Amino acid sequence: MIKKEKFNESGLIKYIEKAGLETQSFNKNLIVESIGDDCAVIEDKKKILLSSDNITENVHFSLDLYDFQEIGKKSLLVNLSDIAAMGGIPRFFLLSLFIPPYLCTSDIKSLIKGVIEEAKKYKVSLIGGNISSASELSVSITIIGDCEGAGIKRFGSKKGDAVYVSGEIGNSWMAFYLNSNKDFIFKNKPGLKASDKKFITDFINKYKLPKPRINLGRKLYTKKLAGSLTDISDGIYKDIFNVAGKGCGCRINVEDIPVNDGLKKIADILNIKNYMDDVISFGEDYELLWTFGREYTAGEIAELENSCGTNIKKIGLIDEKNAKLTLIKGGKVFMPEDHTFRHI
Amino acid sequence: MIKKEKFNESGLIKYIEKAGLETQSFNKNLIVESIGDDCAVIEDKKKILLSSDNITENVHFSLDLYDFQEIGKKSLLVNLSDIAAMGGIPRFFLLSLFIPPYLCTSDIKSLIKGVIEEAKKYKVSLIGGNISSASELSVSITIIGDCEGAGIKRFGSKKGDAVYVSGEIGNSWMAFYLNSNKDFIFKNKPGLKASDKKFITDFINKYKLPKPRINLGRKLYTKKLAGSLTDISDGIYKDIFNVAGKGCGCRINVEDIPVNDGLKKIADILNIKNYMDDVISFGEDYELLWTFGREYTAGEIAELENSCGTNIKKIGLIDEKNAKLTLIKGGKVFMPEDHTFRHI
Repeated sequence: MIKKEKFNESGLIKYIEKAGLETQSFNKNLIVESIGDDCAVIEDKKKILLSSDNITENVHFSLDLYDFQEIGKKSLLVNLSDIAAMGGIPRFFLLSLFIPPYLCTSDIKSLIKGVIEEAKKYKVSLIGGNISSASELSVSITIIGDCEGAGIKRFGSKKGDAVYVSGEIGNSWMAFYLNSNKDFIFKNKPGLKASDKKFITDFINKYKLPKPRINLGRKLYTKKLAGSLTDISDGIYKDIFNVAGKGCGCRINVEDIPVNDGLKKIADILNIKNYMDDVISFGEDYELLWTFGREYTAGEIAELENSCGTNIKKIGLIDEKNAKLTLIKGGKVFMPEDHTFRHI
Repeated sequence: MIKKEKFNESGLIKYIEKAGLETQSFNKNLIVESIGDDCAVIEDKKKILLSSDNITENVHFSLDLYDFQEIGKKSLLVNLSDIAAMGGIPRFFLLSLFIPPYLCTSDIKSLIKGVIEEAKKYKVSLIGGNISSASELSVSITIIGDCEGAGIKRFGSKKGDAVYVSGEIGNSWMAFYLNSNKDFIFKNKPGLKASDKKFITDFINKYKLPKPRINLGRKLYTKKLAGSLTDISDGIYKDIFNVAGKGCGCRINVEDIPVNDGLKKIADILNIKNYMDDVISFGEDYELLWTFGREYTAGEIAELENSCGTNIKKIGLIDEKNAKLTLIKGGKVFMPEDHTFRHI
C-alpha cells in the first residue's frame, strides 16, 4: 500500500453510487445488493454471461480525439457488444476506473456521465467496481448478462454455411482515420469544399462510437438463426477465424462486404484507393459476424432487418480450407496490399 | 484502435487458456462455457456475489519489492477477501492484465503462475478476461462467488454489539515497512545481530501476502454469528465505519487489538514507539472485522478458531456516537499521533 489517491476517493465513490442509482431500476428483481458492500449480489435463474474488457489511453483511444464522455460511452459499448455476440441480454456491470493525476474531478464525472447515459439506453445496471490511481487513464468493465441457454458459441460453423454480417463494415476505421488526420487533411488537401469538410466532420461524429447489436444477437439466438456468432473487434480478416469451425476456412466476396456510401465518397475525395484493405482489417466495428447452415430466405432477411434496425448481408461461405481466408474480388483471388494502419 | 500489442497477444492468450484449464475442474458443474468465447457462461442457482479489484504498479506494489509471482498471487488474494467479507464461496474469476513494454514474456508467465497457484489453493476457476498494452503493470480481477442467501452485509450493527477481528492486525504494514526499508536498516542500524536480520527477513516473507479468511466468513454466515462484516483493506481506523450501523460509532480497546509478537519485537529492535498508529491505519491486512449482538461464549470462540485456523478477538463495542471512533488505551482516550505512512 503505497497508495495515496490524488483525487477525493470517497467523494468520487459517492458520485458513482448516486449515478449508479439511476440504473438500478432496470433489473430490480435480479439485484439483491448493489454498490456499497464488499460484493454486489445478484440472483438469476438463467445462465449467466460474463466478460470483461478495458479501454486504455494511447492504446484504444487518445485524449486528443475523444472527450471524456465519449470515453465513458465507448468503455461500456465495447463490453455490451460481447453480450450481443452471445445472443444474451445485458443486465449489470462493474466499473473499474484507473485515474491518472492529470485528470480533474469534472473530467472523471464527464466520463461517468457517458457510461451512465449508455447504461440507461441499454438498460444495464451499475452494481459495483473500484477506483485506483494510475499513470494513465483506463476504464475496465465487467459486463454480466443472461440467456435462457448457453448462447451462440464461436467456431460452430461447418463447410457450406453462409457467412453474414450486420450493418456496415469499416465505418469505425474511417471515423478514426479522419479524426486522427482531420487537421492535416483540412489544411493540406487542395480543393476540399466546405461541404466536404462538413461531410467529414459529420461522418466522424456519426461513427466514432460503436453500436452493440444486442437486438440482433437476441433474435439470432431465440429464432435459432445462427450456428456460430462473434462480434468484429479485430477486423473480418482476423475475426472470421472465430466463427470458422474446426478444419474450416472461409471464402468471402469482398464486393459483398457492406460499405457505407459516405465512406466510399470520402475515400474518393481523399484518393484512398485501397480502402478495402483497412475496411476488412482495422476492426472496432462491433458489428456481428455469424454463420448459418443455409442461406436465409428474403422473408427472413426482411424480418431480421426490420425488427433489429440494421441491415444484414451475406458475404461468403465457410469452406473446408483449414484456417484459411480466401478473399474474392471481381471473380479473382484478392490479396490485400496492406492491412496495418496507415497515416495519410 | 491505436493498438499494436508489443507482446505476442495470441501466444499469451493460449498460455492463459492452458493455465486456466488447471482450474476448470473445481466448479465443473457450474461452468457452461469458459475461456475462448465472447463471454464465459455459468449456471448457478444460488445467489451470485460479484466484486472487482485491481492492483497497480507504484500504487499497490512496486517491482522492487514484489516478484511477478507474488504480484499474481496478491491480485487474486485481495479479491478472494471480498468474497470472504460476504460469507460466500469463491467460484470463478476473470483476469485482466495491463502489460507495460518493459515486461518480458517470462515475467508475465510468472505472474500468471502466481495467480493460478492461488486459484488452485482456493479452488476458484479462471473463466475469462482480457489483455491490453499499458504503460504500467496492473492486474484487475473480477471475482465471482455464490452464497445460499444475500451474504453478511456491512453497516448491520447496532449499539452494544461486540466488535471482533480475525488473525493479527498490522503484519501487512510491518512487512511492507521492513521490505521498503530493509537495505537501509541492515546498513545503518547499529547493533543489529545476524539473528535479527534473519528474523526481519522471515517476517517479510511470512506476511508479504494476505490470507483471505474464506472459511471464517463462511462459518460466520452459516452459523449466523455476525450482524455485519467487512474485511480490513484500509485499516481498522477507517474500515470500522463499514460495520458501524446508521447513527452508530465504535469504542475500541487498543490493547485488545491482536498484534503479532514478532511485530512487537521488531518495533522494539528498531525503536518504533508509536507502532500502534500504523497497525490500526495502514490497512491491507485483509483480516475480517465484524460485529455480533452479544459476546461469544468461550465455546463459540474455540469452535470458530479451531475450525477456521485463525484466532479471533473481541476488540470493542458499537456505541451510539454517530460516525465516531473512540480508541481507549490504558483506560484513557487514545489519540494516534500519526496515521499516515512514515519512512524510517
